[in-house]
Amino acid sequence: MTPTALAFDVFGTVVDWRSSIVRELEDFGRRYELQQDWPSFADNWRAGYAPAMDRVRRGDLPWTRIDDLHRTILEELLGAAGITSICVEDVDELNRAWHRLDPWPDTVSGLTRLKEKFTITTLSNGNMSLLTNMAKRAVLPWDCVISAELFHHYKPDPQAYLGCADLLGVPPDRLMLVAAHPSDLRAARSAGLMTAYVARPLEFGPGSTPYVVADDEFDFTATDFPDLAQQLGA
Amino acid sequence: MTPTALAFDVFGTVVDWRSSIVRELEDFGRRYELQQDWPSFADNWRAGYAPAMDRVRRGDLPWTRIDDLHRTILEELLGAAGITSICVEDVDELNRAWHRLDPWPDTVSGLTRLKEKFTITTLSNGNMSLLTNMAKRAVLPWDCVISAELFHHYKPDPQAYLGCADLLGVPPDRLMLVAAHPSDLRAARSAGLMTAYVARPLEFGPGSTPYVVADDEFDFTATDFPDLAQQLGA
Repeated sequence: MTPTALAFDVFGTVVDWRSSIVRELEDFGRRYELQQDWPSFADNWRAGYAPAMDRVRRGDLPWTRIDDLHRTILEELLGAAGITSICVEDVDELNRAWHRLDPWPDTVSGLTRLKEKFTITTLSNGNMSLLTNMAKRAVLPWDCVISAELFHHYKPDPQAYLGCADLLGVPPDRLMLVAAHPSDLRAARSAGLMTAYVARPLEFGPGSTPYVVADDEFDFTATDFPDLAQQLGA
Repeated sequence: MTPTALAFDVFGTVVDWRSSIVRELEDFGRRYELQQDWPSFADNWRAGYAPAMDRVRRGDLPWTRIDDLHRTILEELLGAAGITSICVEDVDELNRAWHRLDPWPDTVSGLTRLKEKFTITTLSNGNMSLLTNMAKRAVLPWDCVISAELFHHYKPDPQAYLGCADLLGVPPDRLMLVAAHPSDLRAARSAGLMTAYVARPLEFGPGSTPYVVADDEFDFTATDFPDLAQQLGA
């Protein structure tokens, strides 16, 4: 079976959120003359994201976009660090750091090759404006931008995977999720999608423990996007 | 006031649907050795579209995407023309002619200029897969693809214009609709958007009567996309 379209997880798979957020936090710290362990701050910001989404997924919170979840977590972290004198506009601007994430070095060349043969879209829990602004800044050559926001269901809810296939007009088994996270891929597979794992061992920083994935667990296992393109004949 | 983002009507504004559909129908006619007045057939296919959408807008039909509305109209027109021996796959393929519309000659260069300064998106009644396939084939450089399908409200319902602004994260008065149709622009203006009229006098074929639009009715009035880019300093 060959896929018709590829849907990409974004945070960690397409962009290096950690280095980008640390860079933004360091800039912010210099501007306000703040001393903090910014890599830990970045990790804590990211760590707040899954529990916040789970509250939405369970129905404890009404639909809330990632920008607003990120904002709530950021305010908590700033408060806990005793950083309380930042004007609201600057907190907003810092929160939009997630719109300014840098791609991995192989991302743009890999996507450009894959786009020659497949329809390529995002399938991210990031909201539409976040993904659109990110793509514009980083020149990511998507054919379209699709977000969990369109379905009011965060991944790994099956509605996100199936909704993506429906909007693209392809059967679920002709849509392949490309992601660096086994849990995302397993949920996509349960919904009937094809799956491609791409290793991003630096996602959580140097010295972190990479995922261990058996070669045959997913339809494809690749070291980066050009390797995936090669395997797919693109 | 300067817009942040531009949302483009597509059929007639970005692409020359009539020449493209006539071309596809003529190819189809040659393949099946059929004699028809294909330009009239194309006009009738298009003419069926507004009443079909209005049935959805009034609630007489549940939400139905344009591909399916086009398919219903096509079957009626083929039946009325006595063309009854076409296999279902070939009717489907002909119906997807709407995914293969050609841009106006100035479209790609104009959009490329406008993209340098603004976020550019579709805001079309065409469904997501139609718009995505069209953009891929015609190399339209959208930052994202937004369709009335996402809101289950066809233009000119205000939900379509306001939903587009919401997804882009911009206030309605910083989003400008670009369209060749005064009725679409008037509805966008009523919803609080900025408006730019672009003349497409050949939309309904040579010899058709162009719209008459007062210079001051909309925020901008342009002869084509490069002219709009010039006026907007892009």
